[in-house]
Amino acid sequence: MDNTISIVGHTALDHLFNVEKIAGPNESFPILDYEISYGGGAANIAATIATLGGKCQLISGVGNDFKSSGYEDYLTSTGVDLSHLYRMEDEKSTKAFVFTDKNHNQCTYFHWGPSARLKKTDPPSLDFVHLATSEPVFNSKVAQKAGFVSFDPGQDLVTYTSELLETILYNTNIMFANKHEIKRVCDMINQPFDKLKDMLDVVVVTYDEEGSRIYTDDIDYWIPAIPVNAVDPTGAGDGYRAGFLLGYIQRYPLNECGKIGSTVASFIVEKAGCQTNLPVWNDVEKRCKYYYDLNLSD
Amino acid sequence: MDNTISIVGHTALDHLFNVEKIAGPNESFPILDYEISYGGGAANIAATIATLGGKCQLISGVGNDFKSSGYEDYLTSTGVDLSHLYRMEDEKSTKAFVFTDKNHNQCTYFHWGPSARLKKTDPPSLDFVHLATSEPVFNSKVAQKAGFVSFDPGQDLVTYTSELLETILYNTNIMFANKHEIKRVCDMINQPFDKLKDMLDVVVVTYDEEGSRIYTDDIDYWIPAIPVNAVDPTGAGDGYRAGFLLGYIQRYPLNECGKIGSTVASFIVEKAGCQTNLPVWNDVEKRCKYYYDLNLSD
Repeated sequence: MDNTISIVGHTALDHLFNVEKIAGPNESFPILDYEISYGGGAANIAATIATLGGKCQLISGVGNDFKSSGYEDYLTSTGVDLSHLYRMEDEKSTKAFVFTDKNHNQCTYFHWGPSARLKKTDPPSLDFVHLATSEPVFNSKVAQKAGFVSFDPGQDLVTYTSELLETILYNTNIMFANKHEIKRVCDMINQPFDKLKDMLDVVVVTYDEEGSRIYTDDIDYWIPAIPVNAVDPTGAGDGYRAGFLLGYIQRYPLNECGKIGSTVASFIVEKAGCQTNLPVWNDVEKRCKYYYDLNLSD
Repeated sequence: MDNTISIVGHTALDHLFNVEKIAGPNESFPILDYEISYGGGAANIAATIATLGGKCQLISGVGNDFKSSGYEDYLTSTGVDLSHLYRMEDEKSTKAFVFTDKNHNQCTYFHWGPSARLKKTDPPSLDFVHLATSEPVFNSKVAQKAGFVSFDPGQDLVTYTSELLETILYNTNIMFANKHEIKRVCDMINQPFDKLKDMLDVVVVTYDEEGSRIYTDDIDYWIPAIPVNAVDPTGAGDGYRAGFLLGYIQRYPLNECGKIGSTVASFIVEKAGCQTNLPVWNDVEKRCKYYYDLNLSD
């Protein structure tokens, strides 16, 4: 194993609109401003790991506007290995259209595009893989062939059947979820949390700006979040996973992996967008030392 | 005067989405499919006139994605003169995002972008101009400087003040409106229809698939629409205006201008999209002869 982390899931162009009001049926409202930002959980994580100095490849479906949008050149510049992308020239890239009104109400339309078509694709065998939000059938095929599996169904959990979820969990080493998702996962497989823990090496549950909790069979770590001036929480979870996994593959102890993840997330939230404020390893070392009194270089 | 028709108004990229449901606040729904189509009333009319063989220039604000979207090359290929565009490299082009659900409910978000910034722009003096849906202050400045003015406030009527509307009407020769808009115009200037007619040389009122009516002080023509297999009514009004104006500048009688407009519209509705089925003059001649028994070449 050469310490390459493979990330499976969405590479998406996020269209983020500020609008006067959320438009219902037969309504029309002006857009106050909007921006297109690089997103998709898998791409967020891959770009973060690569920027931190890790080896990382992205396993993702992309469409015919991946190059023209600038996203391809940008990801290449971070150092992510793009040689395993599924390029679909007859599809538009995966996209989210998110409309936010003045009262912070939000509605979203999601174009699955290439991500949906991964369902019928036969994945490669991977040594160390993180399954981010992604097409469930493809994720299950990857999990069954991979050496080491990290899994985070995220908001795509609603698209999983219980059977697919169980298949993946039987092949998973580390699972990530937020406090709502972890409960739903237990419900879907009809098992209490303790049984879920038994199925996996590690379970990481994130609690937004409060922190995260890392469970193994016999240990339970609480990692408080770093208090920073959070401008936009979007992408914080992806940053946490990127830092955690890069720590894990470098054999840092679990509680330190959590602190690395939490430190990375603290940078992401300081600017709007998921990939606009990616730290390098040296930034993480300094902040980890300052807030957690943890020397990563020791 | 060299028979050039100047068209003022929006050049927009229409993003047309089919979605499972219209998303309300804090809802998320998948996009079933979507396409980006060339639109904006002014650009629709200009492309139609140029394709018919007329001389036409577009007075419109465009953003930094006008070229990369393919729209610029397309308009150039139709023969529209683009040398009077306001190019704004720090703005995204004017866009409409239209979401349609399975029950044909529709909601729209409109990004004014460059069109909004025309407000502060000093327009050129134009011999023969059609004011399409556009920024009202800019339209009024154009109207006050132009030789001959055709005016169609369209769905942007809601953005006009009564004062701006009156200023434009005092400088207008031909006005176009649908049956709802004409009533609203009268309400806004607090005048009965007969008084409005007195202010203008010609008033054209369109009645969707039924036809149109052309009023002068003493004449009132009814032009029945041509019955065709209408796939998508979007852009029909723009097609009508293009045909009418091209006929008018070539000194066809008013009732024939209406028949030319109606014939052009009958082509537009046969295909989805506003600029996907533009006829050439010969097509119009043939259909005009067939349905109206009118020889345009006489």
